[in-house]
Amino acid sequence: MKFYDCATAPSPRRVRIFLAEKGVALPTVQVDLRNNEQLGAAFRAVNPEATVPVLELDSGTRIADIVAICRYIEETHPRPPLMGVDAEDKAVVEQRLHWVEREGFQAAGDAFRNAARGLKDRALPGPDNYAQIPALAERGGARLARFFERLDQRLGASEFVAGPRYTIADITALVSIDFAGWIKLQPPPELTRLKRWHEAVSARPSAKA
Amino acid sequence: MKFYDCATAPSPRRVRIFLAEKGVALPTVQVDLRNNEQLGAAFRAVNPEATVPVLELDSGTRIADIVAICRYIEETHPRPPLMGVDAEDKAVVEQRLHWVEREGFQAAGDAFRNAARGLKDRALPGPDNYAQIPALAERGGARLARFFERLDQRLGASEFVAGPRYTIADITALVSIDFAGWIKLQPPPELTRLKRWHEAVSARPSAKA
Repeated sequence: MKFYDCATAPSPRRVRIFLAEKGVALPTVQVDLRNNEQLGAAFRAVNPEATVPVLELDSGTRIADIVAICRYIEETHPRPPLMGVDAEDKAVVEQRLHWVEREGFQAAGDAFRNAARGLKDRALPGPDNYAQIPALAERGGARLARFFERLDQRLGASEFVAGPRYTIADITALVSIDFAGWIKLQPPPELTRLKRWHEAVSARPSAKA
Repeated sequence: MKFYDCATAPSPRRVRIFLAEKGVALPTVQVDLRNNEQLGAAFRAVNPEATVPVLELDSGTRIADIVAICRYIEETHPRPPLMGVDAEDKAVVEQRLHWVEREGFQAAGDAFRNAARGLKDRALPGPDNYAQIPALAERGGARLARFFERLDQRLGASEFVAGPRYTIADITALVSIDFAGWIKLQPPPELTRLKRWHEAVSARPSAKA
């Protein structure tokens, strides 16, 4: 297998943390997103979507999707389970994962990509250019503030985002919050349950990935 | 189990088609989205996210997420497989599903919700109000046009969206295209591979769900 990564970017970090929790080490190729290497012909031959991360399997098949890569690793390296332990738990984890992706990760992406000076026509990742929409940056910030509040509430009911176990939903929430920090959108200190959880997941060795 | 549905809406239709393909029939409660029943106290007690569909399990746990509901059904009713047959195929199906969700379903949602007269402050589903962003409606339309072209290309390489088998990615693509039809955004007739596929999947009995 071969893993196409970018050490500074939030999307591949979600996979790196997942791999670290599984104890899986992969040969890695760095793609320089800051200099738009993903838009060049060489990388588009690897992934026409022009996004990172990508996992190239030994069969030659390339998986260019964060959660689909995690799914493959979960299937082939089941221990420790990070995507649920039975049918009901898998559904609960997936529900929470999608909630965090939408309200946290995507909101941070909207806030960042629609405002960053270097991304004028790159408001969305992918092969096509789309102009920034300032109102979408603003909405992203408003959604993030609500996400922080609601995540704090959830963490009053369980130790981790999707219940009693650390899962892919915690990984996505951690990376979303750290990504939001790039644009100075941080959880207010009075959200003490969120603060407790963020300190705990940040202290795991995988968080350095 | 109990299924909270809305017979006229695209999101629960994705689950209805999935259930029909599995041959699973569930006791169903209709939620009147056109009259905002999902925002009332009674339904918010069922799902604080104020979204449909919801699957209530016999344990009492409620799953309020389209794909998480499908995951639960796939785990408990594995035949016919709609989310992949082995680790690699599961990753391929999930990758394609996410691509269709993002470029098709979400683009149609952006185009529809940011322009519909009845949804002035409801540009996003969920418990919070967000104002419409006209530029986002426009971007949704542009992305849909690209989605149609690129889906047509993919369907030149395989019979179905994620390979040789009908999967959840086909269901999501079918519902996305029919949803886009609400706002008169239809695949142009010269996309013959897309037309062939759309006719085939629309002719399956499940498409009436």
